[in-house]
Amino acid sequence: MTFTYAHRVRSYEVDHQGIVFNGRYLELADAAMTEFFDGFGWTYPQLIALGFDPAVVAIDLRFRAPARLGDDLVVTVTCTHVGTTSTVLHFVVRRGEHDLASITTTYVNVTSGVGRSAPIPQPIRERLVAIAQHQGESS
Amino acid sequence: MTFTYAHRVRSYEVDHQGIVFNGRYLELADAAMTEFFDGFGWTYPQLIALGFDPAVVAIDLRFRAPARLGDDLVVTVTCTHVGTTSTVLHFVVRRGEHDLASITTTYVNVTSGVGRSAPIPQPIRERLVAIAQHQGESS
Amino acid sequence: MTFTYAHRVRSYEVDHQGIVFNGRYLELADAAMTEFFDGFGWTYPQLIALGFDPAVVAIDLRFRAPARLGDDLVVTVTCTHVGTTSTVLHFVVRRGEHDLASITTTYVNVTSGVGRSAPIPQPIRERLVAIAQHQGESS
Amino acid sequence: MTFTYAHRVRSYEVDHQGIVFNGRYLELADAAMTEFFDGFGWTYPQLIALGFDPAVVAIDLRFRAPARLGDDLVVTVTCTHVGTTSTVLHFVVRRGEHDLASITTTYVNVTSGVGRSAPIPQPIRERLVAIAQHQGESS
Repeated sequence: MTFTYAHRVRSYEVDHQGIVFNGRYLELADAAMTEFFDGFGWTYPQLIALGFDPAVVAIDLRFRAPARLGDDLVVTVTCTHVGTTSTVLHFVVRRGEHDLASITTTYVNVTSGVGRSAPIPQPIRERLVAIAQHQGESS
Repeated sequence: MTFTYAHRVRSYEVDHQGIVFNGRYLELADAAMTEFFDGFGWTYPQLIALGFDPAVVAIDLRFRAPARLGDDLVVTVTCTHVGTTSTVLHFVVRRGEHDLASITTTYVNVTSGVGRSAPIPQPIRERLVAIAQHQGESS
Repeated sequence: MTFTYAHRVRSYEVDHQGIVFNGRYLELADAAMTEFFDGFGWTYPQLIALGFDPAVVAIDLRFRAPARLGDDLVVTVTCTHVGTTSTVLHFVVRRGEHDLASITTTYVNVTSGVGRSAPIPQPIRERLVAIAQHQGESS
Repeated sequence: MTFTYAHRVRSYEVDHQGIVFNGRYLELADAAMTEFFDGFGWTYPQLIALGFDPAVVAIDLRFRAPARLGDDLVVTVTCTHVGTTSTVLHFVVRRGEHDLASITTTYVNVTSGVGRSAPIPQPIRERLVAIAQHQGESS
């Protein structure tokens, strides 16, 4: 059960070397994460209403091959860990059959406006656990 | 009495053509505007406290020559118009003696959080009028 | 015959005021322009091969209302002018029935790598003229 | 022997949560890296001429506390590893005494335009080794 997000590389995302600038991959991951939750029927305001406001605490990026202007990228999103207050999403950026990059992001749920960590709300937790288990079995 | 803001062109600001992407000039103008007011002793929180929260309603950009990776740019900021609720700032982007681009931005003062137009507070208005008059005389 | 491009507003496009930063509209216009030509079957490499490498010489932006996180925007692209070496595209950014912003961009065709202006290649010119005429009649 | 790079947080770098978007930290690291080498007298064209064109293969970011609009940040740059073809730079982002974030970036030297890994040129290697050793002793 993997979620995918499509993106075409734009001219302003490419740097002087003609390849997508590394910081732009974090825009891609952010957009893919939003659509991942949206796919479950949770928009950002709905996540906030449920008590889920994820703050990024760690990001690991690995680059295998560059993306270039006009490339049609597909980002795969999976959940690889769910703790009490934190969760880890794993993004793989592909162009056709080629793995170009992967991004592993650790989020801690915070109380909006306060910034203190808070347990991940039960309905969101259940959904993420189901994905993480499925992911564990299939890998 | 012209204010200047310096900026070195970064790799992520350059697009696939090897020139600074047009949208990045608006980042440059925004930073220059902030420092322009900061030069009068008004940080953004202080402007808000004074009742000045400028919303952009119009921007005109003109490009004469491209900026490239590593270019040392200087942005000149002047005020060319002050109305009751609106003001116009004019930015010229230069590399050495060369004019590369100009940006003319019209701001309307809004009541923060409400979005309704409001008169520009007197101390800010006086300062902008002085600059606009000086500018008118010198040109 | 208007071309449309859809975009959902992302968290990184929103500034400290909670509204889409003005420079991001130029990313939107650039993406819409690329898809506009792509809709005629011309990718960027194909445009270059045909002898069309558009350089932006002027941009006018007008803002009526702000766009916010999660907004589903639709950008309409039309051609309003075709000269020998230059053309003007007009973009309107809407959220549902609401006009939020418009962008008018003047491009000059340049010889790639050289930067000198060059006539717009005939097949592209014909297509743009047809759109501009249709636009003139319908408005 | 640590190199520092200063940056003031801009409105367009802040996301809907009012904090600097994570992708913007990679712009900060890229600018700091450029100035780090510039501090040794090597501009990007000079690095290329020497045979050094660093490609990013891995980035680890850790966030401790958010940066906000107007924050005056200082980025510290050190070299923590030098191999035959790769090197690791470590960036710490501070606001006053507070550590806000750290970024560890692994670069592989590539032959420009070809993308194959190549040994780091001797003068650059020597400089990086000296910094990495000094760093190892002082920590």
